[in-house]
Amino acid sequence: MTPRAVVLLSGGLDSTTTLALARSQGFEVHALTFRYGQRHQVELEAARAVAAHLGVARHWILPLELRALGGSALTTEAEVPKGRSEAERAAGIPVTYVPARNTIFLSLALALAEVVDARDIFIGISAVDSSGYPDCRPEFLAAFQRLAHLATRAAVEGGRPVTLQAPLLHLSKAQIIQRGLALGVDYGLTRSCYDPTVSGAACGACDACLLRLRGFAECGLRDPAPYCQEPPPPQGQ
Amino acid sequence: MTPRAVVLLSGGLDSTTTLALARSQGFEVHALTFRYGQRHQVELEAARAVAAHLGVARHWILPLELRALGGSALTTEAEVPKGRSEAERAAGIPVTYVPARNTIFLSLALALAEVVDARDIFIGISAVDSSGYPDCRPEFLAAFQRLAHLATRAAVEGGRPVTLQAPLLHLSKAQIIQRGLALGVDYGLTRSCYDPTVSGAACGACDACLLRLRGFAECGLRDPAPYCQEPPPPQGQ
Repeated sequence: MTPRAVVLLSGGLDSTTTLALARSQGFEVHALTFRYGQRHQVELEAARAVAAHLGVARHWILPLELRALGGSALTTEAEVPKGRSEAERAAGIPVTYVPARNTIFLSLALALAEVVDARDIFIGISAVDSSGYPDCRPEFLAAFQRLAHLATRAAVEGGRPVTLQAPLLHLSKAQIIQRGLALGVDYGLTRSCYDPTVSGAACGACDACLLRLRGFAECGLRDPAPYCQEPPPPQGQ
Repeated sequence: MTPRAVVLLSGGLDSTTTLALARSQGFEVHALTFRYGQRHQVELEAARAVAAHLGVARHWILPLELRALGGSALTTEAEVPKGRSEAERAAGIPVTYVPARNTIFLSLALALAEVVDARDIFIGISAVDSSGYPDCRPEFLAAFQRLAHLATRAAVEGGRPVTLQAPLLHLSKAQIIQRGLALGVDYGLTRSCYDPTVSGAACGACDACLLRLRGFAECGLRDPAPYCQEPPPPQGQ
């Protein structure tokens, strides 16, 4: 039987590359996307396009009312910071941090893994370009791995417990892009911006856009995704 | 400042006692209840009544679409087993198990704790009468505790990380009831049944009812909650 994996898919660059990697390893993929009170539906549309592009057994889209909790610029009306320098981006947890987001996402992925009998969960965490989020660090991932071993039927009934796969953990944005391109990913379908226009164009100035644009620049490539303004031309390294 | 705690509140006997214990320890309580596709709204109404009865700073009721995932008799149309013997109840994970439920609930409690600046999360897990659920075991709880230390702002920025409190972990149902009664809990407001009537009467025959009735019987008491049929008279120990 083809092994099954649950892949957390936001429709961004990292999760899309992660899905492509899972597919390339022969997994039948159950993609899992949350509608969690993002300020825009652009991410959801990107996730749908990516799932269709890379091929999944099923694309699960779950509503998740994080907006009711508040606490983040991504789920409230607070302003997304723009044009921050690398030093500013490195100086602590930004307002775009959603409390316990990866813990919540992985918990629901764990539930789905039990339901569809998948033994692997893929998440596109990168500790290199993680913007200071506590739940993008290797030690967080290791702790969730341990929890996953104890939290499910397999812990009581035997059988291989769920394994977390974070293939991007130690890759830079440029390295992630190179892996994805080698697997045929169309990054024009993906969206990473924290503050896109209604029609889906990226702002080019939020932390996520800056990281992404730098990644493409380091590859000597132009980002194929749409931006509000023409992004600066790529500079080779 | 009065310390704040998030208390997971289902409206059942265990979570209600846990809330009373948190209150008795001087915590300002943010009660957290999920509307997760339970087959009945009875639990929600019980949670509301309990929150009003014991006094909370705020009662958060979050929608959570576990029904979309399926996988449990509590969120689907599958039949809830009735009249099982103690041996049958001890013989593995029942169909009422909701995949990864406590992991998901604790993750959202962790998010709420960050938002309201609570450093304690109370959960009414009991390993004694846990019906074989993997996520009611002490080792599960310890693993989540470790995760909680790594998953939040406090892990990066300093400050006391979130502590899990499971004051019922090693108590039997009868001991839980005794603690609650000593704190003035009105168990007539609580609902534990997996298959109640629309008007809120307990079936008296599912695993949850049998455990609860045995607990009251061991205390030499009659359960004040309403049942479809008159429950058997209490038998002293």
